[in-house]
Amino acid sequence: MSAVDKNTKVLLDPFGTTMVEDYDHLCKEFGIEYFKPLLSKVPNSNMLMRRGIIFGHRDFERILEAMIKHEEFAVLSGIKPTGQFHLGTLMTAKEIVYFQKQGGTTFYCIADIEAYEDNRIPLERSEKYAVENVADILALGLDSKNAYIYRQMKETRVKDLAIMFGRALTLATAKAIYGKRHIGLYLSALIQAGDILLPQLRDFGGPKPTVVPVGVDQDPHLRLTRDLAQKFQRKYKFIPPSATYHKLMKGLTGSAKMSKREAADSLLTLNESPEKISHKISNAFTGGKATIAEQRKLGGIPEICPIYDICMFHFIEKDEDIIKIYNECRNGTLLCGEHKKQTIDIVLDFVNEHQRKRRKFIDKARAILGVM
Amino acid sequence: MSAVDKNTKVLLDPFGTTMVEDYDHLCKEFGIEYFKPLLSKVPNSNMLMRRGIIFGHRDFERILEAMIKHEEFAVLSGIKPTGQFHLGTLMTAKEIVYFQKQGGTTFYCIADIEAYEDNRIPLERSEKYAVENVADILALGLDSKNAYIYRQMKETRVKDLAIMFGRALTLATAKAIYGKRHIGLYLSALIQAGDILLPQLRDFGGPKPTVVPVGVDQDPHLRLTRDLAQKFQRKYKFIPPSATYHKLMKGLTGSAKMSKREAADSLLTLNESPEKISHKISNAFTGGKATIAEQRKLGGIPEICPIYDICMFHFIEKDEDIIKIYNECRNGTLLCGEHKKQTIDIVLDFVNEHQRKRRKFIDKARAILGVM
Repeated sequence: MSAVDKNTKVLLDPFGTTMVEDYDHLCKEFGIEYFKPLLSKVPNSNMLMRRGIIFGHRDFERILEAMIKHEEFAVLSGIKPTGQFHLGTLMTAKEIVYFQKQGGTTFYCIADIEAYEDNRIPLERSEKYAVENVADILALGLDSKNAYIYRQMKETRVKDLAIMFGRALTLATAKAIYGKRHIGLYLSALIQAGDILLPQLRDFGGPKPTVVPVGVDQDPHLRLTRDLAQKFQRKYKFIPPSATYHKLMKGLTGSAKMSKREAADSLLTLNESPEKISHKISNAFTGGKATIAEQRKLGGIPEICPIYDICMFHFIEKDEDIIKIYNECRNGTLLCGEHKKQTIDIVLDFVNEHQRKRRKFIDKARAILGVM
Repeated sequence: MSAVDKNTKVLLDPFGTTMVEDYDHLCKEFGIEYFKPLLSKVPNSNMLMRRGIIFGHRDFERILEAMIKHEEFAVLSGIKPTGQFHLGTLMTAKEIVYFQKQGGTTFYCIADIEAYEDNRIPLERSEKYAVENVADILALGLDSKNAYIYRQMKETRVKDLAIMFGRALTLATAKAIYGKRHIGLYLSALIQAGDILLPQLRDFGGPKPTVVPVGVDQDPHLRLTRDLAQKFQRKYKFIPPSATYHKLMKGLTGSAKMSKREAADSLLTLNESPEKISHKISNAFTGGKATIAEQRKLGGIPEICPIYDICMFHFIEKDEDIIKIYNECRNGTLLCGEHKKQTIDIVLDFVNEHQRKRRKFIDKARAILGVM
């Protein structure tokens, strides 16, 4: 646990399950800028941007300029191969696909070293997840012909950048950002800095604006990497990487973040059986009241409701529809049981379709990762 | 600075210039075993062993058994490419050549990552030293046909072992062994553990007894590596590496260790001009007295004399000759001026001959390291 302001409930721990109750405070505390003022200038802005789910950024103006002027920029994100793709990781996936469509040179990283150092998952095991995760991102629309998809453990350039950066990461800084952890954890942070700066190596055409779309709990990695980019500016001419930050989606049990670290009941994977999806959503925590009568009278609280999050973050495309759901929940017209039923149908449709597409991409995923 | 016993003058800092005033205490404090009881069993024991310069070991019995039974064992040592070979590094060189001749599968590591992390020497610069250092070790008798000579930065297997080991090195252990340092320094310690265990990877025929002949200031690396070997025993079947420890040769200025970290006047490199060699030895600190009269009367103190060390560690082959020098110094017959003159002649002969051989090996060294 780290980057903790003891006076508030703001915690930023990229290796944990972060609790964020006040995004405004976060912006002030860590110097994250608000995304909203830029929104009107973003070409083809997406749902996550419009709804303020992407609420913050660092140096996004640089990317915006490249997008508007049709100049080169890169987008990098990735996944830790520790389990199945779920609705929480789906945000990052949508973001990288969006930036690829806007012309970004695309990098997708399978963070198998982090999975090993942080989650103790041996490479033999993470490889299986890596294949499935890559099939997922392809099914979600990533164009593999125009993307560099790689595993950290196989990418010598990333490891070598981490070794270069090691000299510039003091123990004090490592502890301030990540807390007291084992050396492998600090190393995996350096590896991640290597990932983020990989697109700027000469092999990939040299320095360029790079955007990293992530959940706000990953900001410590960005701060570290921006600092390293500056320290090694002379040698590599790095441009400090930009970032967009999305809010964290709540877990089904009401936990702060839908995460593979939480109980299985807390997350919905993209690979779940219809029965499990129905069961998990039916049993999910909501913002509803104890009795129907009470809810009819007082209304529910969508702000604390993971079912509302599912609709809001992902599945209700039209803004007027999500506003309608919000209002009907608030005024007690829409009850939790009914909303859960609707949501189950929408999620099942999506997951069915996703699984159909995904099956076709498994072989391609193997080929990309060089897995027999 | 680390591994310090505050009650005594024993310090073991593999990254510094270590002061060792009491080798007995060192054995007790860190559990290093005495070499002497094994001496009579060692086939073809060498001068360094006979004279107690190699005074300690860990698990050397394992190597002894392999030597006696003509079973497979490996020897690994290396050099940090931060400057020229000097009389201090010459010990390790002689030791690795010795073990190669006794049948050891030989590994020689150019520790360019350590040179970078610890000494801030960029790879472009250390490469030049690496070539010269390899030419030196070849001129000193290492048979390159039967040795694996490599640079850390180019050896993926070593880097990957370091990444594997990262998970098992706690911050507390890292600090206890190496003190509060930057993350790159801890990483380079893990890299060194990777070097030491490299001979036991499947690519090199799997687990085998391995001896690492080093100065006793390197023992912390050995302790760390032996600990890691045990922690990863299940996966790799590592046999804990053995080590032999030699005493540290004094610097010409009277410093505790002849080291590239010390002033240039303190060390004699194998690549020095005759003038410099004469100058440095002539001006060296000795164990002599302030006046000739006093020395004639009281004798000198060879135990604190770097000139005596040069003879004792390297250049006076016959034991009876070194005993003669010792006694003549002690009883005041041999004065410092005279002994310096004799030593200059011996060193010049050696360096001349070495440089002649070395020149012939420069191209081979380039080829081995893949340097254009």
